[in-house]
Amino acid sequence: MSLERWIPIVGWVRRYQRAQFSRDALAAVIVTLMLVPQALAYALLAGLPPEMGLYASMLPLVLYAIFGTSASLAVGPVAVAALMTASALSTFATPGSPEYIGAALVLAALSGLILIAMGVLRLGFLVNFLSHPVISGFITASGILIAISQLKHIVGVEASGHNVIEMLSALLAQWQQVNLTTLAIGASVWGYLWLCRQRLVGWLLALGMSASASSIAVKAVPISAVVITTLLAWGLNLAQYGVDVVGFVPSGLPAIALPGLDQSLWLGLLPAALLISLVGFVESVSVAQTLAAKRRQRIDPNQELIALGMANLGAGISGGSPVSGGFSRSVVNFEAGAATPLAGAFTALGIVLATLLLTDLLAFLPTATLAATIIVAVSTLIDLPAVKRTWQYSRSDGLAMIVTLLLTLLHSVEMGIVSGVVLSLGLHLYRTSQPHSAVVGRVPGTEHFRNVKRHQVETDKRVAILRIDESLYFANARYLEDTVMALTARAPSLQHMVLTCQAVNIIDASALESLEAINARLKDAGVMLHLAEVKGPVMDRLKDTELYHELTGQMFFTTFEAWQALVHPGQALTAAECQHAC
Amino acid sequence: MSLERWIPIVGWVRRYQRAQFSRDALAAVIVTLMLVPQALAYALLAGLPPEMGLYASMLPLVLYAIFGTSASLAVGPVAVAALMTASALSTFATPGSPEYIGAALVLAALSGLILIAMGVLRLGFLVNFLSHPVISGFITASGILIAISQLKHIVGVEASGHNVIEMLSALLAQWQQVNLTTLAIGASVWGYLWLCRQRLVGWLLALGMSASASSIAVKAVPISAVVITTLLAWGLNLAQYGVDVVGFVPSGLPAIALPGLDQSLWLGLLPAALLISLVGFVESVSVAQTLAAKRRQRIDPNQELIALGMANLGAGISGGSPVSGGFSRSVVNFEAGAATPLAGAFTALGIVLATLLLTDLLAFLPTATLAATIIVAVSTLIDLPAVKRTWQYSRSDGLAMIVTLLLTLLHSVEMGIVSGVVLSLGLHLYRTSQPHSAVVGRVPGTEHFRNVKRHQVETDKRVAILRIDESLYFANARYLEDTVMALTARAPSLQHMVLTCQAVNIIDASALESLEAINARLKDAGVMLHLAEVKGPVMDRLKDTELYHELTGQMFFTTFEAWQALVHPGQALTAAECQHAC
Repeated sequence: MSLERWIPIVGWVRRYQRAQFSRDALAAVIVTLMLVPQALAYALLAGLPPEMGLYASMLPLVLYAIFGTSASLAVGPVAVAALMTASALSTFATPGSPEYIGAALVLAALSGLILIAMGVLRLGFLVNFLSHPVISGFITASGILIAISQLKHIVGVEASGHNVIEMLSALLAQWQQVNLTTLAIGASVWGYLWLCRQRLVGWLLALGMSASASSIAVKAVPISAVVITTLLAWGLNLAQYGVDVVGFVPSGLPAIALPGLDQSLWLGLLPAALLISLVGFVESVSVAQTLAAKRRQRIDPNQELIALGMANLGAGISGGSPVSGGFSRSVVNFEAGAATPLAGAFTALGIVLATLLLTDLLAFLPTATLAATIIVAVSTLIDLPAVKRTWQYSRSDGLAMIVTLLLTLLHSVEMGIVSGVVLSLGLHLYRTSQPHSAVVGRVPGTEHFRNVKRHQVETDKRVAILRIDESLYFANARYLEDTVMALTARAPSLQHMVLTCQAVNIIDASALESLEAINARLKDAGVMLHLAEVKGPVMDRLKDTELYHELTGQMFFTTFEAWQALVHPGQALTAAECQHAC
Repeated sequence: MSLERWIPIVGWVRRYQRAQFSRDALAAVIVTLMLVPQALAYALLAGLPPEMGLYASMLPLVLYAIFGTSASLAVGPVAVAALMTASALSTFATPGSPEYIGAALVLAALSGLILIAMGVLRLGFLVNFLSHPVISGFITASGILIAISQLKHIVGVEASGHNVIEMLSALLAQWQQVNLTTLAIGASVWGYLWLCRQRLVGWLLALGMSASASSIAVKAVPISAVVITTLLAWGLNLAQYGVDVVGFVPSGLPAIALPGLDQSLWLGLLPAALLISLVGFVESVSVAQTLAAKRRQRIDPNQELIALGMANLGAGISGGSPVSGGFSRSVVNFEAGAATPLAGAFTALGIVLATLLLTDLLAFLPTATLAATIIVAVSTLIDLPAVKRTWQYSRSDGLAMIVTLLLTLLHSVEMGIVSGVVLSLGLHLYRTSQPHSAVVGRVPGTEHFRNVKRHQVETDKRVAILRIDESLYFANARYLEDTVMALTARAPSLQHMVLTCQAVNIIDASALESLEAINARLKDAGVMLHLAEVKGPVMDRLKDTELYHELTGQMFFTTFEAWQALVHPGQALTAAECQHAC
């Protein structure tokens, strides 16, 4: 049982059936056809040699099949992780250099270790730091950045940059170097992919193909573009016209080796690895949960951390770039009928075969084809209407989204996401820094108390009753101090301050300190502090504190008791009051 | 009115009376006597020339008097800010070098600008990031660090370091160089100050002095140590025995000049300036509020940001180090009767006079005297029992405190406080990441619903009713997804999921997205999602959203309505039920 908890395959593989095998194998064939061009393309995007994309699609997929809980999630190189990889590595080395490749392996291994640690320590809640507007703004900006970064391959020039402005100005500076043959290939593929995406399903349906089969067929379109342009480039020897091609891809399997152990490199890549891990995990779990729900299955988010961590660690020791769960491949995997995580392991087998057999041919594949594939693929990430929708729903969420989006585009990937997280935490603290509270008075003749601003209630100028409507903790404790002291400064004849705590589930150490400060300051001002309706668990913790022993006033069970004792001391309940109250 | 809001002195100075003048002037004399040795000592602690401490006690105090709202807060150099200054600057330049001094001015000006910006933009709530356990752990660690950092002056050796281990090992490496004359002075002053602190009040009370007068007299003890040892050092020419003295202090007033505008220096000092600003502000406001409460006065925290900001900006343009409100000086100022912020301006006048008249004499002051003054002063900052108290009250708060304390001591000031903030935010997110919720059932024969785990209630296997007991936002939205989907996966015959939202005050954009995901996933699983008891303001915002339009189920006004519609469709209330319900 315990082994099965950490290594899920031990549990389900014993019940593995022939029918499941057929479904997994079919899904693997289709996903392999999608993955070959994507693996090459995302390696290109990350500034890495093409084989690293293929290597990232072997061992990591097998490891995910062993440790993962989603039957549908297709792990491997993805666009956003490739962008983040390129951004993180470019500050450490020149793209394509041995140092750069070494750093990519460290980044993958480090992401893996972070994810595994988070899984083992049950720290999955940390992804809550990434609020939805921040993720959404970041993904949209990433899509735009990725698409623009690929334009250089479509027009056949050298241009690079960390943000949209740098990329576009580098492109414009090179416009006279545009290679027309490359542009012809890039534009044709782009148009072909775009047309197929728009129309192919309709045509196939008209030809009598089933809906799910035709939606799968559409996903195989990029491989056809790869085959056609590769054959063209080979047949016409397009490289002699200055068309950039993938070039030599080593045939065979990667060697297993530990990544370099340069301490300063590991430390330097830590922030980037953390961001890649968190973003990759959030996206993967979201896809996996959506697909699992369609079959009323469950995934275990903490186990997913471990599985994605093992996959990344596997990438790091087998020459691969960082991996994550891809959205479109997972959907295809699901629609093609993948029944267990073994579909992923079979996909890895497909990639191994492709690497053994096809690398001589892939050398002729124009990079413009891959660039067009990327651009069409990432266009689905870009969701600008979401910005307007979020802004209309909530100004502060909209602001966090816009800041994330703009800083990612205009400054850098890291700055965008970190600013978004900091801003959304700040806005959250701001929203929660003023605890709901109300000065209340007694509804005449009853034991009920209501807001003095909204109801006709009895009050007494010697007694202020403040109802606190939220838990008290560091984010709002100081505001409570301000509120109570302002109330006291305004009421010169005040003698008693009653805090009614029926909605207070937690008083943390900061809030306790604030209450102690309030108690001491009110004492100096000649006002007694009383608490009423303190919940059982909260009271248990207060019992050993300075506040409890130094409290100038009393602990009342109900607000009405406090009212009776402070406003009408010595006076028993009248019969009429008792009828209402008891 | 508007001018008075931003420049409070405009309001109260017109009502300034002779009696207030006498009180302010007396307080200023006493605070000046305390401030002279402290200003020199904290400049020494910050690694700056002694006159910078004096300069920081002139213009900043006048500016605080103009912009401040506390009658008692005594602004100027303080120990913790001096420690943080030394720590921040030592990575940029060698202590005492012109670059180091220039960086100190930039740090002061930058802190000032940050505080002013926070005040103008009403960002005072940002100090909530500094929870009480973090501040408390940090202040205790700072006290220990400061005391240990001064030991080298007591024993007369050169030794420095960023943390306790570095400092102690540097000290031990030098033990053979100990200067016995210096040690004799340092130890005598330390013993004298410590004895006076322990016993002097008792003796003075026994001699018939009033309690407040004797507590003020004790605060003037350090100046007597300064006078005695200075005269000794001058008379016996102690410098020839290797006793380190303050040395040349330029007489006269500082020049007003903009600090250097090196962009990389400003950017590099930004994090440190932010920490100094926040810590200084938190401590100042806490002191000011405590003292104000004793006279039922109010301070305005946002205006305090501006006032402390102007004071720091003033320090930066007049050759001073960063300033803040000092605890012990403020208490003395209060007890000596300071009636308005003008007491601070008068103190500045006292410091100007001291600088004009006494600098020739101060040149002979042994640094060992100042070091002993610092050690005795900071011993009040160290509160180790608070660690145990906090740990006993709350494990997570105690953990945040211990981590802050240890990392400040063992690594660095910045690492300590930043780790504390990050950890306390993380723990807070963890505590709030699982919203209180309960599956409820109907109390038979009523329209009340209670937790199925605690009460004997009616349920229906086709209908799950989940009561959500907190607002929904990014920190807990994903947990809600998990809860709902787990509930669905466990109940194969489930057809309806009802979320009861009577305790939900806010649904932020992340939570909205989660609800939309829940709706879509439940739809795929063949379960309808219903909402009940949604509050008015929350409903208003939901009206334009995808969730509202795509909701597979209904919006019910009450949980009972949902029960009636889903469990007993078409069935009207029985008479008995109506009696209970209506």
